[in-house]
Amino acid sequence: MNIPERIAELREQMKDCGMDAYIVPTADFHQSEYVGEYFKCREYITGFTGSAGTALITGEHAYLWTDGRYFIQAAKQLEGTTVELMKMGEPGVPTLREFLKENLPEGCVLGFDGRTVAVGEGRAYEKIASEKHGKIVYSEDLVGRVWKDRPELSREPVFALDLKYTGETAASKLGRVRSEMEKYGATSHVLTTLDDICWLLNIRGNDVAYSPLVLSYAVITENSVELYMDEKKLSSEIRSSLEADGVVLHPYNAIYEEIKEMGEGEALLLDPDRLNYALYYNIPEKVKKIEARNPEILFKSIKNKTEIENIRKAEIKDSVAHVKFMKWLKENYDKEVITEMSASDKLDEFRAEQGNFIRPSFSPISSYGEHGAIVHYSSTPETNVQLKAGGFLMTDTGAGFYEGSTDITRTYALGEVTPLMKEHFTLVAVSNLRLGDAKFLKGCSGVALDILARKPFWDRGLNFNHGTGHGVGYLLNIHEGPAGFRWKERPGEADPLEAGMVITDEPGIYIEGSHGIRLENELLICEGEQNEYGQFMYTEPITYVPMDLDAIDPQQMSAEDRKLLNSYHKKVYEMVSPYLDEDEKEWLKTYTREI
Amino acid sequence: MNIPERIAELREQMKDCGMDAYIVPTADFHQSEYVGEYFKCREYITGFTGSAGTALITGEHAYLWTDGRYFIQAAKQLEGTTVELMKMGEPGVPTLREFLKENLPEGCVLGFDGRTVAVGEGRAYEKIASEKHGKIVYSEDLVGRVWKDRPELSREPVFALDLKYTGETAASKLGRVRSEMEKYGATSHVLTTLDDICWLLNIRGNDVAYSPLVLSYAVITENSVELYMDEKKLSSEIRSSLEADGVVLHPYNAIYEEIKEMGEGEALLLDPDRLNYALYYNIPEKVKKIEARNPEILFKSIKNKTEIENIRKAEIKDSVAHVKFMKWLKENYDKEVITEMSASDKLDEFRAEQGNFIRPSFSPISSYGEHGAIVHYSSTPETNVQLKAGGFLMTDTGAGFYEGSTDITRTYALGEVTPLMKEHFTLVAVSNLRLGDAKFLKGCSGVALDILARKPFWDRGLNFNHGTGHGVGYLLNIHEGPAGFRWKERPGEADPLEAGMVITDEPGIYIEGSHGIRLENELLICEGEQNEYGQFMYTEPITYVPMDLDAIDPQQMSAEDRKLLNSYHKKVYEMVSPYLDEDEKEWLKTYTREI
Repeated sequence: MNIPERIAELREQMKDCGMDAYIVPTADFHQSEYVGEYFKCREYITGFTGSAGTALITGEHAYLWTDGRYFIQAAKQLEGTTVELMKMGEPGVPTLREFLKENLPEGCVLGFDGRTVAVGEGRAYEKIASEKHGKIVYSEDLVGRVWKDRPELSREPVFALDLKYTGETAASKLGRVRSEMEKYGATSHVLTTLDDICWLLNIRGNDVAYSPLVLSYAVITENSVELYMDEKKLSSEIRSSLEADGVVLHPYNAIYEEIKEMGEGEALLLDPDRLNYALYYNIPEKVKKIEARNPEILFKSIKNKTEIENIRKAEIKDSVAHVKFMKWLKENYDKEVITEMSASDKLDEFRAEQGNFIRPSFSPISSYGEHGAIVHYSSTPETNVQLKAGGFLMTDTGAGFYEGSTDITRTYALGEVTPLMKEHFTLVAVSNLRLGDAKFLKGCSGVALDILARKPFWDRGLNFNHGTGHGVGYLLNIHEGPAGFRWKERPGEADPLEAGMVITDEPGIYIEGSHGIRLENELLICEGEQNEYGQFMYTEPITYVPMDLDAIDPQQMSAEDRKLLNSYHKKVYEMVSPYLDEDEKEWLKTYTREI
Repeated sequence: MNIPERIAELREQMKDCGMDAYIVPTADFHQSEYVGEYFKCREYITGFTGSAGTALITGEHAYLWTDGRYFIQAAKQLEGTTVELMKMGEPGVPTLREFLKENLPEGCVLGFDGRTVAVGEGRAYEKIASEKHGKIVYSEDLVGRVWKDRPELSREPVFALDLKYTGETAASKLGRVRSEMEKYGATSHVLTTLDDICWLLNIRGNDVAYSPLVLSYAVITENSVELYMDEKKLSSEIRSSLEADGVVLHPYNAIYEEIKEMGEGEALLLDPDRLNYALYYNIPEKVKKIEARNPEILFKSIKNKTEIENIRKAEIKDSVAHVKFMKWLKENYDKEVITEMSASDKLDEFRAEQGNFIRPSFSPISSYGEHGAIVHYSSTPETNVQLKAGGFLMTDTGAGFYEGSTDITRTYALGEVTPLMKEHFTLVAVSNLRLGDAKFLKGCSGVALDILARKPFWDRGLNFNHGTGHGVGYLLNIHEGPAGFRWKERPGEADPLEAGMVITDEPGIYIEGSHGIRLENELLICEGEQNEYGQFMYTEPITYVPMDLDAIDPQQMSAEDRKLLNSYHKKVYEMVSPYLDEDEKEWLKTYTREI
């Protein structure tokens, strides 16, 4: 079936249920960022493959809301599907909720699969429908009815993450979580977010693309952890270890019925932004609901000493791989056939040579020339092009090592590039370096720091249409809250920066039809001096890959900015050269020379 | 009576009412920033004269909470009073509420005058008392009972502000407010904040120090404005004009009884942060309360074209006065006896020469030498010192002209100052100039911009313990929300910056026992280019007074910062020189020369 046929079948199902409109978010039952194949309903029904977006199907129309990263890609993929693109955040474009308020008919029936929608979101839909004297139906997975060859739920085995990687036992983490429960007066605490569960129990899996997570739900009580997952995924060793920590196993889907058995006197700590609507409404009314952010969110974002030591190792490994890749690329792009996809594969080869490499930490971006202007471009056999002189190759890729996850972007000039391209590259480098040299007082959020990266853009009337940086999970999600760098506050990303957080620094510029440049380091948030003014903090770049001097125009940099670049390159040489042979060292010396 | 005696008498009154603790905020019945003499209860009971602070009296202790601006001053003034200083925001110092939670006994009775406390604040006290199974008493003005020679309520006449100054009639403003009421579904809207009432009705008065406001309450209905004030303050002309706009007059205190008469079906828009607790609890339960921020807050902060033209004129007037003052100071400090207080008076003389000068817009600060380190120092006959070579004189003063209010700070080197003092002066100048050269996208709040001013400080491990800037009212309050420059979000000051707002830019450095430096310009928020990235905005300094080149060390400035200073000084000469004689022009040329 093509997309219009799938939508037509969905409309038949909607008629069957008497629905006027049906919402298909990009979501599994756990608010995951990447979803397993089983959960790709929004992609199935619209054809748009980006990682974020929500579809709305009505009797006459079909719409897709997605954000600035995907405007160009979505416009291409939606051609001929009858699905209309709604560009989130653009002037005059209503949000999904605004659109529903304006367009749903009186007495409407609005449908969605309640397991794929967070509580707050579901409540908002409920309110909109009731204002129209209509109702919602959240019990039906209509795309599931249409989707004949739907993949099965993942059954991949679980692995344990050793104490030398986690730095803290599950028992200790449970202790901290239970202290928080006590502060809230909670007798139990339900977790449905996979990264929170995996962090808490020091386990990882393979049920979701890229993020090494395990499909599961957990209810933490004062003495036990009721864990809902397919127990066939567990080795007897891991099962014993979990049992020693008080874990009791249940089938994956049993939580929806068992939560109904919770009794009077129970006080359940839950995170309405991270619980699905269907599960929430299965909790008996007599249970006291304590609604607050999962305490695991802040806990896991502050990396402990062991994690930081490991992450530093992972960053050096990936930096070494990048340097080898850069040398190979510069020396061979005009000698052999190298494409976007083969370049990306080559980079992963260099990574694998570093040892302890599990898999890419997110969907790799490898884009040449005008593809670079598509912020989250994903090369496919249809779009894959050969690299040649005069353009930029951009790689935004990451690795999951046992020592932690990486997320690194570099842009490489192949041959001579134009003065405008150099001007833009220099601008992006300056932006990245300045945020990587931030000093600030404890208590600052990333909102207060973001302009360090934006100022060189804004001074020229330019901007990039995405956040400057996001937290990075340790073999969990690659985008991790609760802190980040953005110029406007976004809930869940505006916590004060704490020592031990790892946050990316990734400004970019995107010139449609011409070129794209992004440079991304990971920054470790560190404590500096404490004096009469308070506790000072600073950002330390822990990614060590040259910023391509072939694309830098030193004339366009202030003396201070040149000093920043030289000092960063000196550090790159220091950190990476011990892992290189003489020839590679010579090469790196040239590409980290003072300017 | 001295302070301990006053406190002892208050304790007697507390015993009489069975109170364990009594709170005395710095407030009139209108949440005003400056309060009339009648309302200075907190000053009466503690002896501390600063503009912000809250006292708590218990059976055994007395405490004063105040903020970083006042730590040094409060410590001095509280000596020997038995009142203990609680430094707000310092590590380990509880807030008043935290303190009450920890220290109030079971079954406590907590007292305060409910007219001097905002709704939210009163509710918080209520909650704390009820958690202790105690109660609040908010009907008693106990300081009033103790205070024998208390001044009377002000009876100063009202004046009308002409359309050539306001740019918008009261009728038009009422139309905008009523549209907002309609959006909220409100049938009426109560206003108790004096600046909101004066802005709305285009009147001004003289009931409060510095801010030219009228003691009043207003209830805006669909067809009328019920105005509660002493009608003897009104000329027959103003009274007629108000009546033409639907204003109906009532005695000042009548609102407390008349609001009890509101009927079923009424929906009252009120701002719980800006309404006093006593008035709030006189509103009948059957009235629907719509709680939201007063729409006047945003309206009045965005100055219209006429106001902006006038403000520009006021700033030039005050800049001319400052330039004349600076020349006089530099030429005479070592020839005649000039003190902090006489210098300040001289500056006001130069202002008065400019015409249309009403009065100072806030309590002037004129501080020499180590007094400069006291952020909100107020010179008194006891502290007043003579100026001499080797120190800084700082003036933080403002004027209320009919063309608008100003708020300008300059610091002047007298004779030769030390290299460290020059280093600090240069730092503050750079900080000020960078924020005054901000370019940003529409939607930014001051939180996102603040680091432009802080970065030169933070890079050196320094800071200033106050916000970088606040909105300025037009012959209203000198500190006006809802936007400002701060590195941490503070409710009521973190709105996005809108074109037409006027916000100060006033970084400083304070070295206790040695010197203080602050440089303050007012910035007009302006719209810049609109392009594919959005609407750009920028800050324009509209204050034109030299930054004393005798205290600038060009060696410590980057080329970019020197360019900013030179370009600012060029503008100062352009704007001010037309109002100077030849001798003054020559002098200004030297003090605005390129470096």
